[in-house]
Amino acid sequence: MKIYLAGPDVFLPHAMDIGRRKQVMCREFGFEGLFPLDNDDDVAGAPAKIFRANRDLMRQADIGLFNCTPFRGPSTDAGTAFEIGFLSAAGKPLYGYRGSEADYRANVVATFGPVSAGDRPRDRLGLAVENFGLADNLMLTEAIRDSGGTMIALEAREEPALAAFEAFRACLERLRSDRTQAHVAERTR
Amino acid sequence: MKIYLAGPDVFLPHAMDIGRRKQVMCREFGFEGLFPLDNDDDVAGAPAKIFRANRDLMRQADIGLFNCTPFRGPSTDAGTAFEIGFLSAAGKPLYGYRGSEADYRANVVATFGPVSAGDRPRDRLGLAVENFGLADNLMLTEAIRDSGGTMIALEAREEPALAAFEAFRACLERLRSDRTQAHVAERTR
Repeated sequence: MKIYLAGPDVFLPHAMDIGRRKQVMCREFGFEGLFPLDNDDDVAGAPAKIFRANRDLMRQADIGLFNCTPFRGPSTDAGTAFEIGFLSAAGKPLYGYRGSEADYRANVVATFGPVSAGDRPRDRLGLAVENFGLADNLMLTEAIRDSGGTMIALEAREEPALAAFEAFRACLERLRSDRTQAHVAERTR
Repeated sequence: MKIYLAGPDVFLPHAMDIGRRKQVMCREFGFEGLFPLDNDDDVAGAPAKIFRANRDLMRQADIGLFNCTPFRGPSTDAGTAFEIGFLSAAGKPLYGYRGSEADYRANVVATFGPVSAGDRPRDRLGLAVENFGLADNLMLTEAIRDSGGTMIALEAREEPALAAFEAFRACLERLRSDRTQAHVAERTR
């Protein structure tokens, strides 16, 4: 099983090392991890090539595993959100993980200050703040849920927090358990 | 031709009015605009229903038209980024528009302060900042380009700036021109 390892990890110092470590963890659980190629020598510096290389990896993948730790604001990295959409349209199982347990509303407050009270809060600019107790914009969280996957949040204790290694491992455990159950269900059908 | 009108417009005060105005503009150009149903009475408050309703609209659409004006940070709204990915995987033509002409690097500086000098800048947390002179994360801009579409940036002069009406209109003009040329090319082939 090939898993596409999406996330803002590609922007971390030593991104390739972090990618390799996540690939090793995937192998521990019996999966093959495909890490985005933004930093690969063959494509680095050429946006169109990076896009096509990552799109090809997504097309090869059986499953999408997304690092949804907030990046430069209260939400998932825009490139990662794009990839959730891409693999959602492809009908593949989607799993998310994050190094923070706060919900979207709390992340907006932490980033931009207080929001109005009530069921349908607005930020200081008057823009509505989704208030469903979800980790992020509903299109992301519901795409994951609808695919049969799940989002796992665990406060990161290990640096770099953005890599969310603890939540990543917990998500691989869940994935293996879900796959095993699906396999058993198929065999006993 | 049905166009899916993605964007953070759904979070604006009077979102439904803004959606209707964009739909009227679509009709002027000979298109049918499909506006996301986040605020529709039938689904409001139910994230799973909103997700499915918007996904159904995307599946009906022939073209994706995305409001990529930065939202709560230097990037496109995460839900909109998701939808770019969704329609990219579906192989549909994608067009973007934005009410700001600044590139991604400038948006990061405006939001989080100075970045390091050089070809491969990093922000104050040491995270790499894409520095390709693109409007946003390359996965978004290159997906649009690869689809045959384009991204149009025009500084918004009309309120609400987030709706980016001027860039929206310019994008509809481009879309009509591209469609007309494609139609002529097909007829004279």
